[in-house]
Amino acid sequence: MIKAGIVGGTGYTGVELLRLLVKHPQVDVTVITSRAEAGIKVADMYPSLRGHIDLAFSEPDVDVLGELDVVFFATPHGVAQNLMPSLMKTNARIIDLSADFRIRDTALWERWYNQKHGCPELVAHAVYGLPETNREAIRSAKLIACPGCYPTATQLGFLPLIENNLVDPARLISNAASGASGAGRQAKIDNLLTEITDSFKAYGVAGHRHLPEIEQGLRDVQPAGSTPAQLTFVPHLLPMIRGIHATLYATLLKGNQAPDLQSLYEQRYANEPFVDVLPAGEMPQTRTVKGSNVCRISVFRPQDRDTVVVLSAIDNLTKGASGQAVQNMNIMFGFDEKAGLDVVALLP
Amino acid sequence: MIKAGIVGGTGYTGVELLRLLVKHPQVDVTVITSRAEAGIKVADMYPSLRGHIDLAFSEPDVDVLGELDVVFFATPHGVAQNLMPSLMKTNARIIDLSADFRIRDTALWERWYNQKHGCPELVAHAVYGLPETNREAIRSAKLIACPGCYPTATQLGFLPLIENNLVDPARLISNAASGASGAGRQAKIDNLLTEITDSFKAYGVAGHRHLPEIEQGLRDVQPAGSTPAQLTFVPHLLPMIRGIHATLYATLLKGNQAPDLQSLYEQRYANEPFVDVLPAGEMPQTRTVKGSNVCRISVFRPQDRDTVVVLSAIDNLTKGASGQAVQNMNIMFGFDEKAGLDVVALLP
Amino acid sequence: MIKAGIVGGTGYTGVELLRLLVKHPQVDVTVITSRAEAGIKVADMYPSLRGHIDLAFSEPDVDVLGELDVVFFATPHGVAQNLMPSLMKTNARIIDLSADFRIRDTALWERWYNQKHGCPELVAHAVYGLPETNREAIRSAKLIACPGCYPTATQLGFLPLIENNLVDPARLISNAASGASGAGRQAKIDNLLTEITDSFKAYGVAGHRHLPEIEQGLRDVQPAGSTPAQLTFVPHLLPMIRGIHATLYATLLKGNQAPDLQSLYEQRYANEPFVDVLPAGEMPQTRTVKGSNVCRISVFRPQDRDTVVVLSAIDNLTKGASGQAVQNMNIMFGFDEKAGLDVVALLP
Amino acid sequence: MIKAGIVGGTGYTGVELLRLLVKHPQVDVTVITSRAEAGIKVADMYPSLRGHIDLAFSEPDVDVLGELDVVFFATPHGVAQNLMPSLMKTNARIIDLSADFRIRDTALWERWYNQKHGCPELVAHAVYGLPETNREAIRSAKLIACPGCYPTATQLGFLPLIENNLVDPARLISNAASGASGAGRQAKIDNLLTEITDSFKAYGVAGHRHLPEIEQGLRDVQPAGSTPAQLTFVPHLLPMIRGIHATLYATLLKGNQAPDLQSLYEQRYANEPFVDVLPAGEMPQTRTVKGSNVCRISVFRPQDRDTVVVLSAIDNLTKGASGQAVQNMNIMFGFDEKAGLDVVALLP
Repeated sequence: MIKAGIVGGTGYTGVELLRLLVKHPQVDVTVITSRAEAGIKVADMYPSLRGHIDLAFSEPDVDVLGELDVVFFATPHGVAQNLMPSLMKTNARIIDLSADFRIRDTALWERWYNQKHGCPELVAHAVYGLPETNREAIRSAKLIACPGCYPTATQLGFLPLIENNLVDPARLISNAASGASGAGRQAKIDNLLTEITDSFKAYGVAGHRHLPEIEQGLRDVQPAGSTPAQLTFVPHLLPMIRGIHATLYATLLKGNQAPDLQSLYEQRYANEPFVDVLPAGEMPQTRTVKGSNVCRISVFRPQDRDTVVVLSAIDNLTKGASGQAVQNMNIMFGFDEKAGLDVVALLP
Repeated sequence: MIKAGIVGGTGYTGVELLRLLVKHPQVDVTVITSRAEAGIKVADMYPSLRGHIDLAFSEPDVDVLGELDVVFFATPHGVAQNLMPSLMKTNARIIDLSADFRIRDTALWERWYNQKHGCPELVAHAVYGLPETNREAIRSAKLIACPGCYPTATQLGFLPLIENNLVDPARLISNAASGASGAGRQAKIDNLLTEITDSFKAYGVAGHRHLPEIEQGLRDVQPAGSTPAQLTFVPHLLPMIRGIHATLYATLLKGNQAPDLQSLYEQRYANEPFVDVLPAGEMPQTRTVKGSNVCRISVFRPQDRDTVVVLSAIDNLTKGASGQAVQNMNIMFGFDEKAGLDVVALLP
Repeated sequence: MIKAGIVGGTGYTGVELLRLLVKHPQVDVTVITSRAEAGIKVADMYPSLRGHIDLAFSEPDVDVLGELDVVFFATPHGVAQNLMPSLMKTNARIIDLSADFRIRDTALWERWYNQKHGCPELVAHAVYGLPETNREAIRSAKLIACPGCYPTATQLGFLPLIENNLVDPARLISNAASGASGAGRQAKIDNLLTEITDSFKAYGVAGHRHLPEIEQGLRDVQPAGSTPAQLTFVPHLLPMIRGIHATLYATLLKGNQAPDLQSLYEQRYANEPFVDVLPAGEMPQTRTVKGSNVCRISVFRPQDRDTVVVLSAIDNLTKGASGQAVQNMNIMFGFDEKAGLDVVALLP
Repeated sequence: MIKAGIVGGTGYTGVELLRLLVKHPQVDVTVITSRAEAGIKVADMYPSLRGHIDLAFSEPDVDVLGELDVVFFATPHGVAQNLMPSLMKTNARIIDLSADFRIRDTALWERWYNQKHGCPELVAHAVYGLPETNREAIRSAKLIACPGCYPTATQLGFLPLIENNLVDPARLISNAASGASGAGRQAKIDNLLTEITDSFKAYGVAGHRHLPEIEQGLRDVQPAGSTPAQLTFVPHLLPMIRGIHATLYATLLKGNQAPDLQSLYEQRYANEPFVDVLPAGEMPQTRTVKGSNVCRISVFRPQDRDTVVVLSAIDNLTKGASGQAVQNMNIMFGFDEKAGLDVVALLP
């Protein structure tokens, strides 16, 4: 059993981490912090956890966190980077679910997040926690930067095309939609049921913070010498709680000699425990991954034209955040990669 | 490991049984039947189960079912009673999730279900599978009649009051609301999203089939000599998938000497693994039991008047159907009563 | 054409008033106030109004408001009472949608609303704006206190029983459920889509502010000498935007000689333009009143026992607030009572 | 007053036509047909219409329909084409909301709709009823083929770009999402609330029947000599009732000299009563057009790259079907184009 702590446990990625970790056979959650709720029992805030955990929120304390085996940050961006310099000196390994260490180009990060980075010197130490591209580096990482939800769905959908240089990298499109939990547990009018249920909209069309993260991830897997991947990314808000669905478009470079896309995808993900390529012709639904860590993917070439359409569905709180964090932890500590994550999606 | 089969596995209680049983440490599901879908893989119909089960639907066959340790019926009413005479002669133990064996008075059953009963002689052999009142009889039962969803929520809410004769048994009210999965997976216009989302309604006010079942259950626990419990039951349809919430009303017999209701409830359910009495003043939400087998209960006495209000919330597919069936199985086979059921509700 | 103003137009009752008034043939909305949004165009905040209104929010100014024919208050409680002393001196007639003037017993109001009343001397001048009981007084009123949403649905459902002294007034129950717009447009975590969609709960069981208002209204229509009406009121929150559904329970005083309830209801409301008694056996759905000012009602006597069940459905923003306010205005100014309100509910 | 009839009035486009026509100042609906429901009162099926219409469904009869001024077909495809040969001989003008006469190339129609066309000789007589491109032809048309919902949203979004040859016509993408009412009122498991709420999916990726209709419409407005427009069209299903949102992607032909897209759109639609170009930077939400005939549009050029993104939102039952049909009728009969359609969207 390893000891785990969660910094910033009151948000939705925090309670999702708890849902998964309290049933994990090799993990004991011993610390969960929240300045605002210090002293409150977790199960009083989230009654779904009544009977499963007896812990109360506490003030974050680096000395306490440093004694743990693993510390998860489930905080808004800008928080982890402040504790990181001191925490990196302890023996704890760190999995940051926020955006603080995802982008290697600090100037780029500062432009998109509109603030100075708190510890640019540590950014290079972070390993981007997408197991499907980075498993070996994750194994020995001290600090993991867990991917964003849209970046996970989009990268997993594009990988086989990009790695094999099959499509025009300058004309990539990710048209994605997310459940409202992606906006977190924040008291904003924009997130009220009355404002967003029974409606649908795009947002952040002019520029969303996940764009540079996705472009970085795609460029990392392009064959040497390729034109750097360029993405048009349009996120949308769904009137539901959980789920991300990305509809990806790319233009085949040489239409006629294109490979069998179905086989390409099946082979690429044959050994991935959490990527499920659907049988040809089937399309993923977010409900088939609700509460599960699986990404389900389909690939199409409509009318045999040269536009490829990829569909990719995840639960934004699980594979898009907390489940992926646990998957990273499993890899880091040599556990079965599916430990604590082998759950069936809740359907219906 | 025991071998389990499911008859009629294509409905929502069927897929919910599978969700729970494929992760149960002591159960191997080896047969799942459906006349209509015979030959189809379960995971092709319910992609949430991809990677978790490789079984295909088969035609129901008593010889095959009779070789199993336990057979679940997840069929509409009227089906189990046809197979039961032959199945009762085998060694299999049977857990019927349908209404076929819930009501001991066959004439009453036939009036409410508007058809002849197929094997009235077996009705007396059935044990009503509400563990909170019937655990001992369940242990050795050959045939379990699993309670309905509304009856589970309503009985658990009323039990402490009725068992102790604290309220007027002739003036009980259950105002209950259910998610749409309670209507099953049937191609009816009444169940279309376009007909029932973004709206709310009562139904079956003049008489719902769960009424005689609830009255029977309440009368079974009344002290000898009491006026037989009489219930006004009004079900409502919620624009969501899972969850039952019952708001119960009863009139205290002697207002002033009434016991401390909070303590009464806490003590009654202190040893029940799946009934959670909330702290005084808190109210249950169905989301805190989504996908879990727990019933959360609160009790109130507004304005200190003589009307008691009890709130009771379950997941209709779990504690209201398939989870309760698994709980019965655990009791019957001497497993830990929480085996396979110790899951955290999916929140948010 | 009369000139109308709206104080506090940024909330949901404000935008609903605008939806109705901009199409009203005899009304010109010339002022809409909001301290927080002064200078912002209404249609920039509510794009549904683009092309229908060109007005911008302004600071509230009694001199300006006093020049109008009618002023609506669509403010939280506690606001109208501050402007009222000066506004009552002008020629404007006032329709207050808030709770400030609904309860005649100021001490009772102060207890439930937990604050001092700002102008107790004016409370007696207010006419309770439920046209179905108060039409004559409304006609000449200077100040209307528009009923709350739950009180409207509950009173209209109970009226025929209470006015005729047919049921035990000490055992009334209103089990009601509301869409989330009833909580207003406030940035609270409790109202986030992620917190309340896909779930159902009761709230305010120990005591809700609409309870004293409903009891006052019912007592006002009881025959002289009756035991004062006493209500158990349990509100619930529905995972949808608009709609209130009240399920009412009452005990018939003399079961055998009870009148034909269906006829009783049909006759009581035969001349009411906005109360629709459904054919016997049908049950109202909130979707059939979505966006309309109609209250649809059904009455049942299940199993011919002595408990009467009444179902009453309204749109909480229309008949439960802004539509009723317009209905009051129509009566006050001698317009056709249906002017501007004769819209078909949006179904599906 | 003209006399109008509706063939096939039991579906959602039928009830939406009624919602609009019963309030239209110049139309009297005197016939509504349904073989299945003949004899049933419309308001018994759709209680939202109680008090607004007293008509009952009748068997369709060409002699009766032929006496009317206008006949709407709100039927599934394949129905209108059977009645059309005889109806075209009468004086009635016809507005067909189905797909029967939308595609001029009958062979293409037959391939996509997988059946023989019932009266190919009449196809050339039909005028495609998109007022924004075809107003003059509509004025004198005998038979209108009303556009599909996705085609309306997609064409209105692309028009200014295509008419001015600004983008590569071979690389158009329409990523669209529709509420469930788009699937009609059909008893199919795929449309149950339990199957589609709280989830999101693409469908028809390999080929959807609206694709050839959209391509035909776009090619019709291309400048002479252009490469014929080619579209990748991916529809998605939203967990809500009403609303279509199309996110359109196109590649600018000459990035640097591109015109001011905002002005281009504003000017193109300056005189269109039902197309609303939002202020620069704002994004449409389907809720702002719920129940209204307006299409709200935004245009973006993210990161100043050469991909243009257009957002287009309509109510699929109003501007996407019945509202557009009424708009066509208004044009045909010389009424004010906004008559009966000048309603405010229901928000919240």
